[in-house]
Amino acid sequence: MIELTERQEKILEIVKKYGPITGENIAEMLNVTRAALRPDLAVLTMSGYLEAKPRVGYTFRNGAVENEIRKILNRYRVRDVKSVPVVVKETCSIYDAIVALFTEDTGSIYVVDEDNFLTGVVSRKDFLKATLGQMDINKIPISVIMTRMPNIITTTLDETVVEAVRKIVEHEVDSLPVVKCFIDENNEEKLQVVGKISKTTIARLFLDLAMKRFEGV
Amino acid sequence: MIELTERQEKILEIVKKYGPITGENIAEMLNVTRAALRPDLAVLTMSGYLEAKPRVGYTFRNGAVENEIRKILNRYRVRDVKSVPVVVKETCSIYDAIVALFTEDTGSIYVVDEDNFLTGVVSRKDFLKATLGQMDINKIPISVIMTRMPNIITTTLDETVVEAVRKIVEHEVDSLPVVKCFIDENNEEKLQVVGKISKTTIARLFLDLAMKRFEGV
Repeated sequence: MIELTERQEKILEIVKKYGPITGENIAEMLNVTRAALRPDLAVLTMSGYLEAKPRVGYTFRNGAVENEIRKILNRYRVRDVKSVPVVVKETCSIYDAIVALFTEDTGSIYVVDEDNFLTGVVSRKDFLKATLGQMDINKIPISVIMTRMPNIITTTLDETVVEAVRKIVEHEVDSLPVVKCFIDENNEEKLQVVGKISKTTIARLFLDLAMKRFEGV
Repeated sequence: MIELTERQEKILEIVKKYGPITGENIAEMLNVTRAALRPDLAVLTMSGYLEAKPRVGYTFRNGAVENEIRKILNRYRVRDVKSVPVVVKETCSIYDAIVALFTEDTGSIYVVDEDNFLTGVVSRKDFLKATLGQMDINKIPISVIMTRMPNIITTTLDETVVEAVRKIVEHEVDSLPVVKCFIDENNEEKLQVVGKISKTTIARLFLDLAMKRFEGV
């Protein structure tokens, strides 16, 4: 995504078409000297467009680089990057949940039943709608405004981060509860909340990858 | 970040210490056959831990891969990924701004003066605070609750996305207005809003990179 000069673009075209090709040959095709071409070839090599192989020449490496990044990004699992969610009971008032939102400085709140199984998710927009209405938010429990199953989008510890991000983007949600699934004696699915993946998590991972602060491969 | 078996970890240790080293030699050191080792070496090579060079052997490539990803991520500029912001005038009521927030389905709103220069930013949390208070949100203009200069964190078209993400993470904001800077006749800095970078933008870029849907190198 760096902006290339017209000559650099021409060099890429030539290497795509004729590579592997020597700097000498590229210079000939462009009617310039090898020395004049040196800065352009350096830029293209350092920025990853071209690969310079001794005694072979320049090759185009777009695919190789993109494959690499895809492989790396797909290596991260939800368990590696998840954060700690803010969880309240269904009986918690809307007002108290908003207080938790501010004191814990979070974007969404997860709601659990008396057995601590997930029953709902509430976003800042849900809270905003509630405060705009005529509701007595001090009395009405959060269960009234929460999004319930089957409309909660969740992820699991072993899912890839890429898959979790795909869910966030496609379902246009701010975060996903990370859940462990149990089947109870009535054959019903119960979800235990063990973490959270939010857009903030993704921004942090992106930054860590770019700054090389993330431990591990 | 994939989970390695104990034997795969041992192989990594050996290659880190003795690489480049042949599969044959690794097998010897682990007291197993070369054939037994083949699946492990395949996993480690495909997942990017090791590089297999014909007639040379296996080398450890953690650093190389991380350098690559860092280079790629640092190539993107704000201008390549920015989105369209929702902008209102300072005189807009808090209520009307909230309506815009919902109809435009956005997370933050930027506020401009009568000359269309940036004067404020309002987040969902700011709105939530306003609706919780005793304010008459139908009458009070948004300028009362907005964050003003010099407390607005901004970015520019030419900044790298990595730098923009760093600002978002470190200042704990949901988005950054992308601005062009002008100096007016009174020698004052004026900011024109030309875009927006939000956590959603980052999530999308992350996904595009992982899915290889992003055009260009």
